[in-house]
Amino acid sequence: MHPPLFEAVPNFSEGKDTTKISRITEAVRAVPGVRILGLHSDPDHNRSVLTFAGEEDPVLSGAVALANACAAELDLISQSGEHPRMGVLDVLPFVPLEGAKMDDAVRLANRAGETLGTLGFPVFLYGSAATASHRRSLPDLRRGGYEGVASRIEDRLWKPDHGPETLNPHVGAVAVGARPFLVAFNAYLDTTDIEVARAVARRVRASGGGLPAVKALGFAVGGKAQVSMNLTDLELTPIPVALEAVRSAAADLGVSVESTELVGLAPLEAILQTARYYLGLRELDAHHVLESRLYGPSDSGKEQTSEKST
Amino acid sequence: MHPPLFEAVPNFSEGKDTTKISRITEAVRAVPGVRILGLHSDPDHNRSVLTFAGEEDPVLSGAVALANACAAELDLISQSGEHPRMGVLDVLPFVPLEGAKMDDAVRLANRAGETLGTLGFPVFLYGSAATASHRRSLPDLRRGGYEGVASRIEDRLWKPDHGPETLNPHVGAVAVGARPFLVAFNAYLDTTDIEVARAVARRVRASGGGLPAVKALGFAVGGKAQVSMNLTDLELTPIPVALEAVRSAAADLGVSVESTELVGLAPLEAILQTARYYLGLRELDAHHVLESRLYGPSDSGKEQTSEKST
Repeated sequence: MHPPLFEAVPNFSEGKDTTKISRITEAVRAVPGVRILGLHSDPDHNRSVLTFAGEEDPVLSGAVALANACAAELDLISQSGEHPRMGVLDVLPFVPLEGAKMDDAVRLANRAGETLGTLGFPVFLYGSAATASHRRSLPDLRRGGYEGVASRIEDRLWKPDHGPETLNPHVGAVAVGARPFLVAFNAYLDTTDIEVARAVARRVRASGGGLPAVKALGFAVGGKAQVSMNLTDLELTPIPVALEAVRSAAADLGVSVESTELVGLAPLEAILQTARYYLGLRELDAHHVLESRLYGPSDSGKEQTSEKST
Repeated sequence: MHPPLFEAVPNFSEGKDTTKISRITEAVRAVPGVRILGLHSDPDHNRSVLTFAGEEDPVLSGAVALANACAAELDLISQSGEHPRMGVLDVLPFVPLEGAKMDDAVRLANRAGETLGTLGFPVFLYGSAATASHRRSLPDLRRGGYEGVASRIEDRLWKPDHGPETLNPHVGAVAVGARPFLVAFNAYLDTTDIEVARAVARRVRASGGGLPAVKALGFAVGGKAQVSMNLTDLELTPIPVALEAVRSAAADLGVSVESTELVGLAPLEAILQTARYYLGLRELDAHHVLESRLYGPSDSGKEQTSEKST
């Protein structure tokens, strides 16, 4: 067994200035034991999403380095963009990966929140790390962006969990949370009619009585109607089940799925679920995957599989 | 870029005596830089298939350690089993993995053949390492097992490539080769009629004018008709294409595929091909797989993917 691994998926409020984005990213990369998995900068939203992973202490150090770099490089007063934001380091979720449970990610979020508080960031804990049920939802927490948070901060129900109870307008506040791994999976329909995508989304998403652990919205992207999904628990709803529901709802509306896309990363298990589902491969797991055996954590006890014959 | 990796999939003539099998396996595991990926022992065939991988020199050292252990532990005179065999270390194929080409595996097979020759094993090179076209096919090379090889060894066409030109009856000879990675994939039909499986196999396999790089046979396994396939080039015929051909041929004969199985290992790319095929996921590759990013060879230049949003 190797030590538990965690992922951090911070969002920070800069999506245009590549020099600043690079300096912020490099501050995280410089932390030993941290592996940068992804960086996605969106100039329209003026926002970047950085993904990094490692064991608990390196990921915590990476998060602290990130917060310091954001405070040094960015200024919320001069920042604007379409996305509602409440701080230079806006959102900092921790995700349990291999060997880690949600409780471990909650502990990591608490440690990070406490440290960022002492560094001067007002910290709101959310998701599984929330300290009250009305504070679990990120949209509720950051409603109205910086201005909304500023208007509520005197309210006993919306005090920060850590750090100062006033907002510094240059830095703002940060939401620190723990949540499960999230797969972002989109389906493009062979129609330009966004209303069709919205109708499909309403039918498949959990909030409309559709599939559990599925969030879905309809968009128009590149002239195509897109059903954009977040799958928040692949054990409840794997990718193929979500897609078949979209295909079926689309067919009922006289359209079909032309192509799909995965935004960002998916765990190997999500791909294996897909192969099991469509191939009827009941017993496929990571031990059947050559690269898992070559590069994955060592498991000398499990070698009763081999390439057949000669 | 990391150094080229190779797999060796030796077959040795012992499938019952677990003490001997374990000593032989441990001799390979003791070689630094070798990773044991699988061991499959078959008591009926009295034969074991060991799969190990690593860089060129460790894999070569592993193969030499294996050959020495087989000669020390096993005696062909007292060995019997259903499978035709020609030596204690019977077959030793090398497979190019990441970063390696078939030419590299041929070079490795030649180095191994030369070394085993000096150690006293008559060595026949086969597959892509064969020194003449009539010696490429392993079934041709070992036709009749030890006795067949003994009867042909004086023939100019069937002389060993390395080592003594006479057979030691305790040790026998070894076929050393290079071949592509091979995926063994079986489909179980909802019939007990082996003739149906044979008819499906004839229709899908390359030799019957079916799919390229597909070998297929019909068997009866556990009361079910099984179409047993070897896919020898996944770029020519990926798993889903082979399965859909089987499903279609089965449907024409009034039966269907109940389940499938993967025997041994498949490269991650084979699983990704499957997800692309059925999900319409055009751009899926290993960089979308979390574990590839966590454990795989480092690739800091390719981080323009990330988990979406918060």
